[in-house]
Amino acid sequence: MKVLGYAAQTPSAPLAPFLFDRRAPRPDDVTIEILYCGVCHSDLHQARNDWGFSEYPIVPGHEIVGRVIAVGDSVTKFKPGDLAAIGCMVDSCRVCAPCNEGLEQYCEEGNIQTYNGRDRHDHTQTFGGYSQVILASQDFVLHLPENMDLKGAAPLLCAGITTWSPLRHWKIGAESKVAVIGLGGLGHMALKLAHALGAEVTLFTRSPGKEADARRLGAHNVVLSTDSAQMQSVHNQFDLIIDTVPYEHDINPYLPTLTLDGTLVFVGLLGDSPTFNTMPMITGRRSIAGSCIGGIAETQEMLDFCGQHGIVSDVEVIKIQDINAAYERLLKSDVKYRFVIDMASLSAA
Amino acid sequence: MKVLGYAAQTPSAPLAPFLFDRRAPRPDDVTIEILYCGVCHSDLHQARNDWGFSEYPIVPGHEIVGRVIAVGDSVTKFKPGDLAAIGCMVDSCRVCAPCNEGLEQYCEEGNIQTYNGRDRHDHTQTFGGYSQVILASQDFVLHLPENMDLKGAAPLLCAGITTWSPLRHWKIGAESKVAVIGLGGLGHMALKLAHALGAEVTLFTRSPGKEADARRLGAHNVVLSTDSAQMQSVHNQFDLIIDTVPYEHDINPYLPTLTLDGTLVFVGLLGDSPTFNTMPMITGRRSIAGSCIGGIAETQEMLDFCGQHGIVSDVEVIKIQDINAAYERLLKSDVKYRFVIDMASLSAA
Repeated sequence: MKVLGYAAQTPSAPLAPFLFDRRAPRPDDVTIEILYCGVCHSDLHQARNDWGFSEYPIVPGHEIVGRVIAVGDSVTKFKPGDLAAIGCMVDSCRVCAPCNEGLEQYCEEGNIQTYNGRDRHDHTQTFGGYSQVILASQDFVLHLPENMDLKGAAPLLCAGITTWSPLRHWKIGAESKVAVIGLGGLGHMALKLAHALGAEVTLFTRSPGKEADARRLGAHNVVLSTDSAQMQSVHNQFDLIIDTVPYEHDINPYLPTLTLDGTLVFVGLLGDSPTFNTMPMITGRRSIAGSCIGGIAETQEMLDFCGQHGIVSDVEVIKIQDINAAYERLLKSDVKYRFVIDMASLSAA
Repeated sequence: MKVLGYAAQTPSAPLAPFLFDRRAPRPDDVTIEILYCGVCHSDLHQARNDWGFSEYPIVPGHEIVGRVIAVGDSVTKFKPGDLAAIGCMVDSCRVCAPCNEGLEQYCEEGNIQTYNGRDRHDHTQTFGGYSQVILASQDFVLHLPENMDLKGAAPLLCAGITTWSPLRHWKIGAESKVAVIGLGGLGHMALKLAHALGAEVTLFTRSPGKEADARRLGAHNVVLSTDSAQMQSVHNQFDLIIDTVPYEHDINPYLPTLTLDGTLVFVGLLGDSPTFNTMPMITGRRSIAGSCIGGIAETQEMLDFCGQHGIVSDVEVIKIQDINAAYERLLKSDVKYRFVIDMASLSAA
């Protein structure tokens, strides 16, 4: 199947129109016409090979919502016309211990990424959501609540689940105190989701101007991380800190703000963390952890929860033709809080 | 009460005889004649003010075993003649949430250290076990199984509980795989205790010569951490890594050896940890944590467990007059695996 998309052909090339072959559908595949696709910071990283494992051409995009246009013979979970969504994974081994626990993102053979991956069966490249059509096994396709705003729903598939999974894993609820470091695509979802789970929510930020927005998004408190008196006032407070900052940064100021047995979890930083002092970890049995997106069942749970609570992402809709300009703005954090591509712009061009 | 001990009077002075006043017993106090006291690396650190919070004179020692010689009117748990032990703490607030959970080491007001601390009631200095006699509230005194070798029991009060507590907190049992970094006072106890809990136990070491000893102490496997092929062979293996190394060291080689949801816990390093890469933490929801000694109930549980399983520390008994030479050997890790002072040497001098 020939599909039109936008691709990076080299690390330095801007994204440009690219006509490519999607693999032929298998009996368990759901084929989806893409309506909206969110723009994740990792799209930019992989388009530019910042992590060193990009295989070109790259068609980015893993926050994908659309409508089912075809299903294979063995598909039971979807029918043409259904709303459907695809996130960061399109497959995994499905038999290892993590897969059996619904933790496909931690598959022992490695999950298959929606783009910049290789199909498990025919070893063809995977291409993402900056395109007209995508297909995947029904077991990696999500249902979207019918009442959900589709453009705002797209970022739930990465920014949403990436913050939802640690909130659930560390059992956040009405008795919990949660802090979020950084107010971007992931951070604003973390505020909304933690708030809806009933937690007392605090935003750590370096920018005084973000307070009003943070409160609107669900924060009960805003702490300027550059103000040592404010930081001191929240020592021993937080059961969980979700650290969404995607670049190297000092975590020492945050560790003493964790409560006994509290955890700071990285969800955005893929790389080196600077030196940290172990003393607050030992004196309070505190932890530093990492968390990777979320499993398929957990993603469905999150989408259903968002449907029930009227939660979507705050987005700025762009045309696919504006993607390179959007990347430049992304580098300056100049978006509230996620770009989403209206994929109708691709066919209209 | 006048008591003879050994003290450091300044950071650079060798330990020397020191006659000092113990506070008067209170109704809930148990007074103990000290028979043996273990020599912990932190004794040396505090005698020399390596951590910057030493208050002189320092009478070190928090691995204390002996016999009860007097009890206050309200004491119900001990009587004269009983074996008794004191570890790293002699008091805490007893009413905060951690204290109520038996986690006195994480007391919100700070636990009272056996030495280099201040009594909660009269604010006098606390002095440790390098002395003839010590007293503490019965709630901070432990029972020793009568069958236990006393000199080998002393290090259980710090080296033992410090490794026992994370083993129990992270629910180590017959299905678990545990690794230990470093074979010293803490490391050798971690091997013995993890083995007795039924876990499969691995020692990480930089020294090929330690293999036979490690196996005798309970290790099923020994991995040379300087050999990348050996390290690669244990990727995704360990539920818990107990890191006993007391100085700054690179943890990056160890993180990928943790299994999904595995934890590396620092028990020996009070200071900076170098840069680490977050990628293996995110891709396997791995954690880095800290753990501080253990609570009183947990310490009693550990002593009882050791009594049932015939576990004590491997010790080299010294006279108090040899303490300064022992400190120099400790700095070279020249002890298998814990110095213990025979306190009879103090009165005999």
